[in-house]
Amino acid sequence: MDWKIRKNEYNQEKIAEDGNRFLIGNGYMGVRGTLEEYEKEQLVAINLAGIYDQVGEQWREPLNAPNGFFGFLEIDGKPYRLPAETPKSHFVELDYRNGICKRETCFRTGRGDVILTCERFVSMKKVHLGVIRYRIRANFHADINLITGIDADVWDINGPHYKRISMDEESMLNISAVSEEKEYQVSVVADERTEFPCEKRNYQERLKSLRIINFITDINREYCVDKFFAVYTSKDTDDCYRMAKDEVLQAVAKGYETLLSEQKEAWEEIWSNAEVLIEGDEKSMEALNYSTYHLASIAPRHRKSLSIAARGLSGQTYKGAVFWDTEMFMLEYFLMTNPSVAKTLIRYRIDTLEGAKKKAKQYGYQGAFYAWESQEGGFDACSDYNVTDVFTKRPMRTFFRDKQVHISAAVVYAIARYIEVTGDQSILEEGAVETVIECGLFYYDLLLQRVGKEGYEIHDVIGPDEYHERVNNNGYTNRMAKYTFQVAVQLMNQVSDEDKIATAYPLEELKKKFEEAGEKIYIPQPNGNNVIPQFDGYFDLEDTTVEEVRSRLLDPKEYWGGAYGVASHTQIIKQADVVTWLAMFPADFSKKVLLDNWNYYEPRTEHGSSLSACMYALLACRCGMPQEAFPLFMKSASADLQGGGKEWAGLVYIGGTHPAAAGGAYMVALKGFAGLEFQNGKVYVRPNLPKHWKSMKFKIMYQKQQYEIEINEQKTEVRAIKKEAL
Amino acid sequence: MDWKIRKNEYNQEKIAEDGNRFLIGNGYMGVRGTLEEYEKEQLVAINLAGIYDQVGEQWREPLNAPNGFFGFLEIDGKPYRLPAETPKSHFVELDYRNGICKRETCFRTGRGDVILTCERFVSMKKVHLGVIRYRIRANFHADINLITGIDADVWDINGPHYKRISMDEESMLNISAVSEEKEYQVSVVADERTEFPCEKRNYQERLKSLRIINFITDINREYCVDKFFAVYTSKDTDDCYRMAKDEVLQAVAKGYETLLSEQKEAWEEIWSNAEVLIEGDEKSMEALNYSTYHLASIAPRHRKSLSIAARGLSGQTYKGAVFWDTEMFMLEYFLMTNPSVAKTLIRYRIDTLEGAKKKAKQYGYQGAFYAWESQEGGFDACSDYNVTDVFTKRPMRTFFRDKQVHISAAVVYAIARYIEVTGDQSILEEGAVETVIECGLFYYDLLLQRVGKEGYEIHDVIGPDEYHERVNNNGYTNRMAKYTFQVAVQLMNQVSDEDKIATAYPLEELKKKFEEAGEKIYIPQPNGNNVIPQFDGYFDLEDTTVEEVRSRLLDPKEYWGGAYGVASHTQIIKQADVVTWLAMFPADFSKKVLLDNWNYYEPRTEHGSSLSACMYALLACRCGMPQEAFPLFMKSASADLQGGGKEWAGLVYIGGTHPAAAGGAYMVALKGFAGLEFQNGKVYVRPNLPKHWKSMKFKIMYQKQQYEIEINEQKTEVRAIKKEAL
Repeated sequence: MDWKIRKNEYNQEKIAEDGNRFLIGNGYMGVRGTLEEYEKEQLVAINLAGIYDQVGEQWREPLNAPNGFFGFLEIDGKPYRLPAETPKSHFVELDYRNGICKRETCFRTGRGDVILTCERFVSMKKVHLGVIRYRIRANFHADINLITGIDADVWDINGPHYKRISMDEESMLNISAVSEEKEYQVSVVADERTEFPCEKRNYQERLKSLRIINFITDINREYCVDKFFAVYTSKDTDDCYRMAKDEVLQAVAKGYETLLSEQKEAWEEIWSNAEVLIEGDEKSMEALNYSTYHLASIAPRHRKSLSIAARGLSGQTYKGAVFWDTEMFMLEYFLMTNPSVAKTLIRYRIDTLEGAKKKAKQYGYQGAFYAWESQEGGFDACSDYNVTDVFTKRPMRTFFRDKQVHISAAVVYAIARYIEVTGDQSILEEGAVETVIECGLFYYDLLLQRVGKEGYEIHDVIGPDEYHERVNNNGYTNRMAKYTFQVAVQLMNQVSDEDKIATAYPLEELKKKFEEAGEKIYIPQPNGNNVIPQFDGYFDLEDTTVEEVRSRLLDPKEYWGGAYGVASHTQIIKQADVVTWLAMFPADFSKKVLLDNWNYYEPRTEHGSSLSACMYALLACRCGMPQEAFPLFMKSASADLQGGGKEWAGLVYIGGTHPAAAGGAYMVALKGFAGLEFQNGKVYVRPNLPKHWKSMKFKIMYQKQQYEIEINEQKTEVRAIKKEAL
Repeated sequence: MDWKIRKNEYNQEKIAEDGNRFLIGNGYMGVRGTLEEYEKEQLVAINLAGIYDQVGEQWREPLNAPNGFFGFLEIDGKPYRLPAETPKSHFVELDYRNGICKRETCFRTGRGDVILTCERFVSMKKVHLGVIRYRIRANFHADINLITGIDADVWDINGPHYKRISMDEESMLNISAVSEEKEYQVSVVADERTEFPCEKRNYQERLKSLRIINFITDINREYCVDKFFAVYTSKDTDDCYRMAKDEVLQAVAKGYETLLSEQKEAWEEIWSNAEVLIEGDEKSMEALNYSTYHLASIAPRHRKSLSIAARGLSGQTYKGAVFWDTEMFMLEYFLMTNPSVAKTLIRYRIDTLEGAKKKAKQYGYQGAFYAWESQEGGFDACSDYNVTDVFTKRPMRTFFRDKQVHISAAVVYAIARYIEVTGDQSILEEGAVETVIECGLFYYDLLLQRVGKEGYEIHDVIGPDEYHERVNNNGYTNRMAKYTFQVAVQLMNQVSDEDKIATAYPLEELKKKFEEAGEKIYIPQPNGNNVIPQFDGYFDLEDTTVEEVRSRLLDPKEYWGGAYGVASHTQIIKQADVVTWLAMFPADFSKKVLLDNWNYYEPRTEHGSSLSACMYALLACRCGMPQEAFPLFMKSASADLQGGGKEWAGLVYIGGTHPAAAGGAYMVALKGFAGLEFQNGKVYVRPNLPKHWKSMKFKIMYQKQQYEIEINEQKTEVRAIKKEAL
């Protein structure tokens, strides 16, 4: 395994998909794996983390920075660019060990061939910095114009976001742009280094700041141009233009090779904690590590309070918003490999508590109702009309925003899991206790009691399976609410009397209420066949097959859920729901119950979400079925490697990377196949490897101690190896 | 005013509408106002009350009897029938004072004109009997075949319902038919009397038992044929064929004139109690009395326990099912004019209590959940998929059956109102107390309490306005539930300790529970603008106009309600909802609140149901606005006179008469314009006549005493006139 993926053919129709597969990123920005000469039509994006802007009545979305990687070749006065040209040969390669994307294209001209090679990365050490080395070689005396620059005519779903764009008449290329709604400034400065005689001339074209580098090639000599650009926004600094300039000056001074070494070092550091070595199945090892490459590429290391969007930094899809994906699917990877990032993710939720309280209030509830699609400040970007009816083209009233109440419990889960795994109590003083209490208050306010009956119920929700709207007593939701009450009581018990929390909340009263709620909340139980109803009345729905339901579609794009969708009144579900519950809380029931539920729900699940397969895989492992888990694990681990997911919803691009599937695959590998568990400060490994896996080796962090775990046919070893915060 | 309506032109496209407008009936059967020569294509129906049958997977519907009025003319060997012929002249006339329908058609032949006159009625005295007099006159020596008989090839929506049809070789025409599902037998026997020389010959054609009466006419001489037929079913007697034969023999012996006199007497008796005389507005007087003609025509006098279908006896539409229409809209007319019919209607509900308990149980509730569309035994004919999506042609999941819980309260209302108005306590010993208790138990089981909050709520219902599905705390529903609790407590207080009810129910415990529930149930209150929200969150919906919402339709037939209907997420409502509440319980709020709600909701109401206008009219009267009430009263009173309502839903005929609108108009006249009220055994009249009404005169029954009420410019008089049960 060479930690590289490569694609040798060129096909236009895969431009969007390749943009995801060859993505590079450093948590500050993500750069789609598009070619340098591409423009917005090819979905080029330098997607920035945690900065959003809204144009008109359209939904708010993250900003894309002006593209500092922009550039193309002119040979003998004629532009040679894909996709307009047909290349003589072409490949793209991602070195995901080091976060370096390379392309090489051979253009055939009337006079001979010119080979363009570009190697680029966004620095993992200096997150504002992008670096590219062009190499150009011709088998004739070609008159080369390398046009390089910054393209502010960026791809937007709901743009354009820049209402003012300015370019200074300086020697360095530069663009400063001001966003529409919030007037964020984004500055991109670029410069390059050449060590051969050439002529350079700056010029400007509509929304582009450009430079022509002109030279005549010697035959078969390689000409090397190193370009450096930096991106700063007014969220980073008050003077982003100057900061970007300084960064570029320093980069030019350091030079490409040095920056490349730094990049490799930084990534080696990541892999030294994160790589998972598998013997006997190179495909699995590649898929899994390629998956975690994506997680590492979008991890927010540069800030103390920031989270990860559902599509990572692969573009503006899903509004660049943070979903439960982060807490329930990605968090575990960071806890194991880089707990400080895990803390940063949680801090984002703590710091957006006000937004969650505001949302709860808007719906008439106490406490904290986290955004289903969270943006800056916890603003819920989710609309009441999130799907378009294919038959009428009308927006359909959906209830993701108002009824998917399990989101708040995901935040609580992340906090509790962080404390459990890291042993770090510091977040308790940084707002975590208030956050959990407010989530508890929210669920408490949702509780309903049938008059004259004992239990507490939660009605009118959507569980993880979004195809069934407005159901009562969704098992997953009720179980997570119960968990929230329990965690809240536990954390309140740790609060000392002097703490400001003790004055801000009537702790004793709340403890009593939450304890009672945790006991009285109704948790759906297995029926005579050991199967837990996903919600009240689930078993009364038509029992049919995924294929049958699919065959009822009148339009391949129609929505399966909603009030009248083909799945809505059947037992066919979109994604793991009861199974997510059981995968999270396997101790709730006997292994037999877990298994019977897996067997019941798996054939009734469309797996229409990338969050589904990993939960089924995890539960399969917990039922002692690694072989059944394996294909589902691979489905999860290959989500971005294989591509092929849904990319378009009508005319809106909804593709992108799937970091939750990546995190899910990682969870399956460690918690499922390796059987990693923590109990009372100890690490346990109870392996369940797929038959063809000969060995597995990885490191994890647990309570400030790093462990190396090795599983092979001879032994299962857990070795403490270093003690320090990562 | 001559108590007749007449139509002089003939137009085929109005066949369905005329079938309703010229309907005759006697409570046992209703005969659509179609012509004698019509067959099922023209929607001929002799619709029988309270007898249902189901074919295959289609919904169950009432039986239509073989048509004993069938017959047509042949002149000189050629048939002359509408609509195939174009008549020289034609009229149809309904004498609604006497329930007699007449048609006269002049056929032009090559040799001269033949005038056919038919005068027919179904006997109000002998409800199994239909009578028709043919009169034939030609201005030449015409060779006439009058073909007369019984047509068992009946119109069905979901038929054919007769799986076996037999005809005896007897002198009398006869058909006995056996229904598909329940094997009900229906026998029709017919004979006629002629007093001129003619030849008669019986023969049979597919599903028809026929007789040719042949004669040659003298010029301009009138030939008279009197035909008598009787209908009996196995629900009436074990030997329906013989009973029908006997009835016909007696009728033939009595002769047409005698039967006609009896008919007129019977109807005079009805009108002597029911007519409403209005001076100054003949149109109103005609519309109102024509409306109550329909109520009288479908009143079940021949049985002790039977109710009225939403479309009366005008056909199989709406499955011949009983809705809340009977209790909330029609009952008042019978209480005022014929309390024993009112009791019969209530007995139907008491006798179907088991069905209602079964339905409640099916949904997991205690008590009695009455059928939304009630058939025999209280079976709920309402389907879970009651509307077809015009865009996909798929059935849409609707919630009328499971969420329109206010139906049970309508039954309670009818019982309480019956006792109040008649003073008759006998129903208390006939199951009324159990019925009310069971309805109370049902609502009690629906009650939800937010944990930690005081009030009781009812969630996830549909109120009278069906465009807004699955709402919480619908004001009308909660108010009716409160009323149910109160009535239940009141009735339980009257139960003596020896009564079997006292052993069957834990009365003291129930009283306590219901009292508490009646106090704690949340009743939505007026907001700052005095307006009561129809349900939780109603005011958050888009505030727009009926016209705007209509303009958004993509297909004129698409459903306005459901999850994605054009009205669903707006404040536009189908029909009176809060206003129904306020019209029923005007004492709940000040007149100012009533008025402000009327002013708010009226422009937001589509009046897409015939149950809407009368409630707005009634409330307008209670706000002292008879002029505003008047057009809504006329809309209600003219529902069948004018026609023009929705007649088709796709290919299914949904037209028919609108007895609830008729009953509503009557309520507006008496309770609204006349201001009739009962308090502590006394009759009060506080008139509010429309300006152009000079006087109003009518009779009512109140607590076994009949009163005549006269209102004119000089005086308002309430005179007790006779004391006896009607």
